Amino acid sequence: MASHDRVRAAVLGASGYSGIEAVRLLAGHPFVELVALTSEHYAGREVAEVYRHMTGIDLPPFEELRADLIRGRAEIVISCLPERVGAPILADLAQTGIKVIDVSADFRLKDPAAYRQTYGADHPAPALLKEAVYGLSEFHRRELREARIVANPGCYPTGALLGLLPLIRRDLIDPASIVIDAKSGTTGARRQAAVEQLFAEVNENFRPYKICNHRHTPEMEQEIGAALGREVAVMFVPHLLPVTRGILSSIFMRPRAGTTEQDVRDAFEASFAKSRFIRLLKPGELPELKNVRATNFCEIAFVLDRRTQTLCVLTAIDNLGKGAAGQAVQNLNLMLGYDEAAGLLAAAPVP
Amino acid sequence: MASHDRVRAAVLGASGYSGIEAVRLLAGHPFVELVALTSEHYAGREVAEVYRHMTGIDLPPFEELRADLIRGRAEIVISCLPERVGAPILADLAQTGIKVIDVSADFRLKDPAAYRQTYGADHPAPALLKEAVYGLSEFHRRELREARIVANPGCYPTGALLGLLPLIRRDLIDPASIVIDAKSGTTGARRQAAVEQLFAEVNENFRPYKICNHRHTPEMEQEIGAALGREVAVMFVPHLLPVTRGILSSIFMRPRAGTTEQDVRDAFEASFAKSRFIRLLKPGELPELKNVRATNFCEIAFVLDRRTQTLCVLTAIDNLGKGAAGQAVQNLNLMLGYDEAAGLLAAAPVP
Amino acid sequence: MASHDRVRAAVLGASGYSGIEAVRLLAGHPFVELVALTSEHYAGREVAEVYRHMTGIDLPPFEELRADLIRGRAEIVISCLPERVGAPILADLAQTGIKVIDVSADFRLKDPAAYRQTYGADHPAPALLKEAVYGLSEFHRRELREARIVANPGCYPTGALLGLLPLIRRDLIDPASIVIDAKSGTTGARRQAAVEQLFAEVNENFRPYKICNHRHTPEMEQEIGAALGREVAVMFVPHLLPVTRGILSSIFMRPRAGTTEQDVRDAFEASFAKSRFIRLLKPGELPELKNVRATNFCEIAFVLDRRTQTLCVLTAIDNLGKGAAGQAVQNLNLMLGYDEAAGLLAAAPVP
Amino acid sequence: MASHDRVRAAVLGASGYSGIEAVRLLAGHPFVELVALTSEHYAGREVAEVYRHMTGIDLPPFEELRADLIRGRAEIVISCLPERVGAPILADLAQTGIKVIDVSADFRLKDPAAYRQTYGADHPAPALLKEAVYGLSEFHRRELREARIVANPGCYPTGALLGLLPLIRRDLIDPASIVIDAKSGTTGARRQAAVEQLFAEVNENFRPYKICNHRHTPEMEQEIGAALGREVAVMFVPHLLPVTRGILSSIFMRPRAGTTEQDVRDAFEASFAKSRFIRLLKPGELPELKNVRATNFCEIAFVLDRRTQTLCVLTAIDNLGKGAAGQAVQNLNLMLGYDEAAGLLAAAPVP
Repeated sequence: MASHDRVRAAVLGASGYSGIEAVRLLAGHPFVELVALTSEHYAGREVAEVYRHMTGIDLPPFEELRADLIRGRAEIVISCLPERVGAPILADLAQTGIKVIDVSADFRLKDPAAYRQTYGADHPAPALLKEAVYGLSEFHRRELREARIVANPGCYPTGALLGLLPLIRRDLIDPASIVIDAKSGTTGARRQAAVEQLFAEVNENFRPYKICNHRHTPEMEQEIGAALGREVAVMFVPHLLPVTRGILSSIFMRPRAGTTEQDVRDAFEASFAKSRFIRLLKPGELPELKNVRATNFCEIAFVLDRRTQTLCVLTAIDNLGKGAAGQAVQNLNLMLGYDEAAGLLAAAPVP
Repeated sequence: MASHDRVRAAVLGASGYSGIEAVRLLAGHPFVELVALTSEHYAGREVAEVYRHMTGIDLPPFEELRADLIRGRAEIVISCLPERVGAPILADLAQTGIKVIDVSADFRLKDPAAYRQTYGADHPAPALLKEAVYGLSEFHRRELREARIVANPGCYPTGALLGLLPLIRRDLIDPASIVIDAKSGTTGARRQAAVEQLFAEVNENFRPYKICNHRHTPEMEQEIGAALGREVAVMFVPHLLPVTRGILSSIFMRPRAGTTEQDVRDAFEASFAKSRFIRLLKPGELPELKNVRATNFCEIAFVLDRRTQTLCVLTAIDNLGKGAAGQAVQNLNLMLGYDEAAGLLAAAPVP
Repeated sequence: MASHDRVRAAVLGASGYSGIEAVRLLAGHPFVELVALTSEHYAGREVAEVYRHMTGIDLPPFEELRADLIRGRAEIVISCLPERVGAPILADLAQTGIKVIDVSADFRLKDPAAYRQTYGADHPAPALLKEAVYGLSEFHRRELREARIVANPGCYPTGALLGLLPLIRRDLIDPASIVIDAKSGTTGARRQAAVEQLFAEVNENFRPYKICNHRHTPEMEQEIGAALGREVAVMFVPHLLPVTRGILSSIFMRPRAGTTEQDVRDAFEASFAKSRFIRLLKPGELPELKNVRATNFCEIAFVLDRRTQTLCVLTAIDNLGKGAAGQAVQNLNLMLGYDEAAGLLAAAPVP
Repeated sequence: MASHDRVRAAVLGASGYSGIEAVRLLAGHPFVELVALTSEHYAGREVAEVYRHMTGIDLPPFEELRADLIRGRAEIVISCLPERVGAPILADLAQTGIKVIDVSADFRLKDPAAYRQTYGADHPAPALLKEAVYGLSEFHRRELREARIVANPGCYPTGALLGLLPLIRRDLIDPASIVIDAKSGTTGARRQAAVEQLFAEVNENFRPYKICNHRHTPEMEQEIGAALGREVAVMFVPHLLPVTRGILSSIFMRPRAGTTEQDVRDAFEASFAKSRFIRLLKPGELPELKNVRATNFCEIAFVLDRRTQTLCVLTAIDNLGKGAAGQAVQNLNLMLGYDEAAGLLAAAPVP
């Protein structure tokens, strides 16, 4: 499987949900050779011992994370380490010329004060915050091609921003009116033991959580604000769905006076003209989680209700796909000048 | 089980999801004797042959629906017949002095024109529309005590109105700003074969449907409008959850300038002071479907977000409980002068 | 709710899955007053703060477990403490005249050596092992009426033994041929954080585990052996189902030459003639988890296949109901001379 | 996507669960060009209109099934038509030189009398029964390379036979003792409206069905009998799992006296030495559905219990993968001389 033509990549934190999804995607990638996989928990074990679905695929074993060992081997790393664990290591790697994609939240917030407020600690490498490119691929292709360090967006921000930024850019809506009602599968949380994530607690249940104090709110506001050129506040209400994968976001806002359905459609088409992973649905069609499961695709639809003067935009992504590992691979493709969709076009397994 | 002190009740359309739930509740009701159960599909069969969970409970067999046969036996009927099927029969029964609770939508819309527009046919008994009491128990106790015919509210309207009417009544919000994002389990649809309701279509999926054209929208608007004293339009976005029972509604609106959290809490407390089925949650608590499953309870919480000037009210009910059969039994209790909670206080089976 | 006619009961370990189910059942029991609920984790908190589905029910708060405090108040205890934690406390309580029902495994194995081998520690109160009555209610009614300490059966043994003992008693099968293929919902495991019980690990999955080395195997063998009058070995293969509650056991065995379907039916009817919780199904009917969910019922069916000379007996129970808390309440009823079914006859919520 | 080097393939009945899975697999196959997809229900519509997860893939539209139109275009067909619908068409196609893989049961039973008894009608093309090769790929590679018409095995028989045939071939077990306890996801049934397959009927439930009279029993017996050289009867108990995909089979049997674990392991290794889709697990590992979901893999493990002299073999497959469309593609590869694994090596999406 190894080849001199392939880029040598490492996945840090490779045994969590996002990490193993990155491994699955990269194992089937035509231009990538996986040279190192780290896992605090499973160091020393073969991947297929822990994750039998990877049996038969030529992979390095899980190993302890040591920056010096990564440096010698990898040209690019995708990091799925937890918040605050990865930042100093990634800063170190980036400074020695390794390209870095951080799937955690450590490089997303540009403002160290916002980081401190949101994550409760000083940022371990504030100098790099400015340099890091926010990796919402469809909106930052140019910067991503040059990036040394990429902050892969959060799963909720990805679902929300893909539905919002095209409208913000064309000034079709009132940014002060944005309400994001999002519903996520359970793999949005890390793969760690927690009573509230037990099957018997989640199954046959559905519940909102962290209304107005979820860590993804400042991230959304930063990016909407950047597109808008001024600060904005949005209301964000996440819910926990009894499914393994997927986020459906229903986003409500007031359209500017005179905004038509065609305006909205035009805005999406303009933003996503070259975007192979965005499915702008036809009128009458609505997004479904199953159509994007285990993929990097995003389904988008909208309903403009004249009676209530409300615009509802709906997006569906896989939180581990476009919301994490899929978008990380898309960003890797962009950073390395590959076809943006390389290794990412397999259809969802439906049903 | 039979007793001369018990009211003689019939359930029409007793073999569907709402119907059999009504049977389950009434079978354990201290003041009710079930004297007739009709089912087009299972007529002639014992209930326990079809629904083995009712084994050992003394019940009449399923029979064909014939109004003349019901008249002789029942003093009150709960009808779970489909829309348009039940109305003429119920009109007939009501006129011969039998108390009627219609769980379908036939008597909910006061305006025959609205009925025609929503259900695609002329109302079969328009004269009774005005008389029928809208059975949202917490808001119509007085009328329900005198009612001859009760229109049991739809499941989505129940979840939405319990969260909205207290605020409308105190004029705490702008009614033009209401957005209802609701998520329902699959038993909101009738128990009939349909590809889109197959397990493999619903499981591991989540999807919105009928945005802005769901039949429950005019019903909500009628009741909000009645409380408000003028017409109103709301945006209603229903979604299909991969759970069997339950509706969680996230309702967004703009508070009137100056509205405080205490105002909102006071409004709910005032509306629900005597309501044993409403759980107004403490600050920090949020509704969950599991806590109301198989019950007539409703959990309510709210978050007033000053940053975005948005009020989010959240309600959780069981669509077959408070959203259908449970509320029908509550209405039966009110109509007959029983304790409103008779037969309805069993705790949800959690987990 | 309290009454001088009611027995004063405590539930130890009341905040786990079995514990809170016992609380739910006893809260609706006509002859029981709950006077103490212990929980290591939630001591000091009101039940309804932790388990909101119990809101509105008059209950003592969770408290720390102290035997001296229980002694003064309770006449009977149901213990859902973990293995080895409860035994010394229960021994102490039993010796001071409090009736004890232990839902854990501490008093099930009669032989201290078997306990040591299975649970990896010496039994903390071996003297009581002989006295403890194995609480498979349908087979030990007489002893239960006199019992001071009852070992409530394990969930898997309950499902298996109800299908096997009637046949063993009539010598209709070859005990050396028994194979038990059982499938359990996730609440068979304790409510504690564990990666393998996370929703994303269990959902859309199904797997066997602990084949031939599950702790319930010696328990089944002890009871089959007791009925048989000699030692026996059975093959037991448990599987984990993606459901919250329920165990379906498919039990295979060779019938004795000449055994007829009528013999098998007669055996079940004889064993369960007075058993209100056993539903012996009609030919052609087969057990389903949904019909017993949240109840103390057990559905039983069998198929005698002449072509292969194999008898398949199938049983369905709720692992928290008849498999734990339900049977504990049934045993409480027997121990105190109440109607065996008191507080246990509510129908399953279907769907 | 089309190429002169690719074989031109058609999928008949392409819009059902097996059919669309075959389309998904063939759309990513390096040596296949899909030239025709038939669907009675969706004829005239683009695939991506009906199945949005296929958006962006170059596919012919669904069309009506007409043999003459297939003849002109396809060199090989995979038929997912229902039983008895496909047989005459496939017979016609096969006789004009088109290679045929029938995923339905029409060509599996060699004996027309057995077909009549099992499927309730005369076989429409009995002459071809003898010629058709039973497509359990791992056991018929040589015949498959020459085959004109292949009877793709049923999903349950695939799971059972992969666990049994290696042992039968080495005479390690008593064939008269075989019991197959199998559990299947809901896509084992066709994608057609049926009350018993509704989400609310299957979810949180588990049930056996068709014990000893499932149509797959004679198919298993035919193949075991063929390996054995004489007739055999097996006990087969299928169950319905609340999952979308997957079959786990627990197979019990008596080993011949003296059979060791090493004998069993050797038998599996010998049978599957060249089989890239069979994962013979290490001692202590057990099959799980999740590891084979959406793939053509089969996990196999066994436990030899000396205490009860019982051998339990466990296999896990995806019923739509190795149990239907995956194996059909594997057979296509064999029939056309391609790498047996072409297009089939993508790892399961876990979680």
